[in-house]
Amino acid sequence: MNFEEKYRSAVTRSATTVCVGLDPDLAKLPNHLSRDVNGLSSFLKGIIDATADLACAYKPNFAFFGALGPEGLSALGEVIAHVPGDIPVILDFKAGDIGNTAEKYAKMAYDLLGADAVTVNPYMGYDAVEPFLRGTDKCVFLLCLTSNTGSQDFQRLKTDDGPLFEVVARTAVKWSADGSCGLVVGATHTEDLPRVRELARDLPFLIPGVGSQGGNPSKIAEQASSADGFGILVNASRSILYASPGEDYAEAARQASDDLRVSLQST
Amino acid sequence: MNFEEKYRSAVTRSATTVCVGLDPDLAKLPNHLSRDVNGLSSFLKGIIDATADLACAYKPNFAFFGALGPEGLSALGEVIAHVPGDIPVILDFKAGDIGNTAEKYAKMAYDLLGADAVTVNPYMGYDAVEPFLRGTDKCVFLLCLTSNTGSQDFQRLKTDDGPLFEVVARTAVKWSADGSCGLVVGATHTEDLPRVRELARDLPFLIPGVGSQGGNPSKIAEQASSADGFGILVNASRSILYASPGEDYAEAARQASDDLRVSLQST
Repeated sequence: MNFEEKYRSAVTRSATTVCVGLDPDLAKLPNHLSRDVNGLSSFLKGIIDATADLACAYKPNFAFFGALGPEGLSALGEVIAHVPGDIPVILDFKAGDIGNTAEKYAKMAYDLLGADAVTVNPYMGYDAVEPFLRGTDKCVFLLCLTSNTGSQDFQRLKTDDGPLFEVVARTAVKWSADGSCGLVVGATHTEDLPRVRELARDLPFLIPGVGSQGGNPSKIAEQASSADGFGILVNASRSILYASPGEDYAEAARQASDDLRVSLQST
Repeated sequence: MNFEEKYRSAVTRSATTVCVGLDPDLAKLPNHLSRDVNGLSSFLKGIIDATADLACAYKPNFAFFGALGPEGLSALGEVIAHVPGDIPVILDFKAGDIGNTAEKYAKMAYDLLGADAVTVNPYMGYDAVEPFLRGTDKCVFLLCLTSNTGSQDFQRLKTDDGPLFEVVARTAVKWSADGSCGLVVGATHTEDLPRVRELARDLPFLIPGVGSQGGNPSKIAEQASSADGFGILVNASRSILYASPGEDYAEAARQASDDLRVSLQST
């Protein structure tokens, strides 16, 4: 199954557009687990087991594993392999480098770690994105309008072709002719979601920023879904992972994931 | 010694502004070395030993190590530790993520791997850059005008404040109030170097794109140096690393590094 097939089947099966972000922090692990890479790996496998029928995707963030060194990178591979084969995995590393280097990152993400999709920073342009496109097999989510306050610094700059993030959205549509692209659009910019959807009617949107970052989930589906009702993956990381600091963490994560699923359906 | 002290002492000692890029590719290792992580590690240590008195910095690119998995990440740590303590190491990973995630990347680059500087993608704005600033201890090179053809796609877009790359240059100067910033400006854009220097008089420029990418070194010093004659780090990777495919690879790398040093001085 390619990315799109996995995504659509997971949404249909689970009636959810929740993407569970895997950003593990040793300092926040439940007390009964060891605060090392083994504890971290057990923690995330517990999260995956508890949420697998309530997730349209998993999104591990590379930084949280890379900061733990070689053992962290091993754990990342293990955790991705633990995700059921019919649920897509998006490796969030916001890569972006010249062609021969991007080729290495693509190899790491797809061939070594087994991801179905990646996040890529568009600033360096097409030849930094092209190595991540593999026909319709994978999906490349380009940063468009990110959920953080720094998104104001450059992404909204007015260009001759409209705000920079709109240029990125239009460009992603163009580049989709060579493979599958998606867009990262933060839930903290709900007022802009309809405009981005207008510019990129059929692209999947990865939408971070609900939960700990404060984006309001209740209107996202209405504002951002594509015409066929698919097209959104609403990511929450900390609010699901750390829903409880106790031994019931996995159960609490399941509940938090289901609560978000329901709140995404209420318009 | 902080980044700037290491950089200035290396330039003064070696009379060079050559930065040696460490982008190791198993397929391109000399035939007498094993095509695995051990061979790669020996190869790069040989390169460092042969060029240490002819380099103002070393720049390992994360992708080339990450693509080799956990062992590759171990090798990256070893290779950085092999660089003499008075020569700065720039970890090239072009990171860029929200604050709590950028914090993890900073931890990986500085605390785990021991880098003196990093490359960061500016698209996500200040809070994605701030965790990499550590007073004047380190240096954060922001992508400004990159050496690849894709630099045309977004970096030259006209905004109300001039081309996007000029906005980035001015912003880097502003952010330097909170720490040390530098700029990545490709040698393939020699005609733009004087303008970027005008906008960012005192910032160090990391200049990739000579060698395999075709940028002309002969005018770079004149066009891009800061008033005190410092301020440039001219990176070459493949043209130095793979100067010879034989057992004389380190000697050939030394010669290629010295040739570039000399060509940078001829105006």
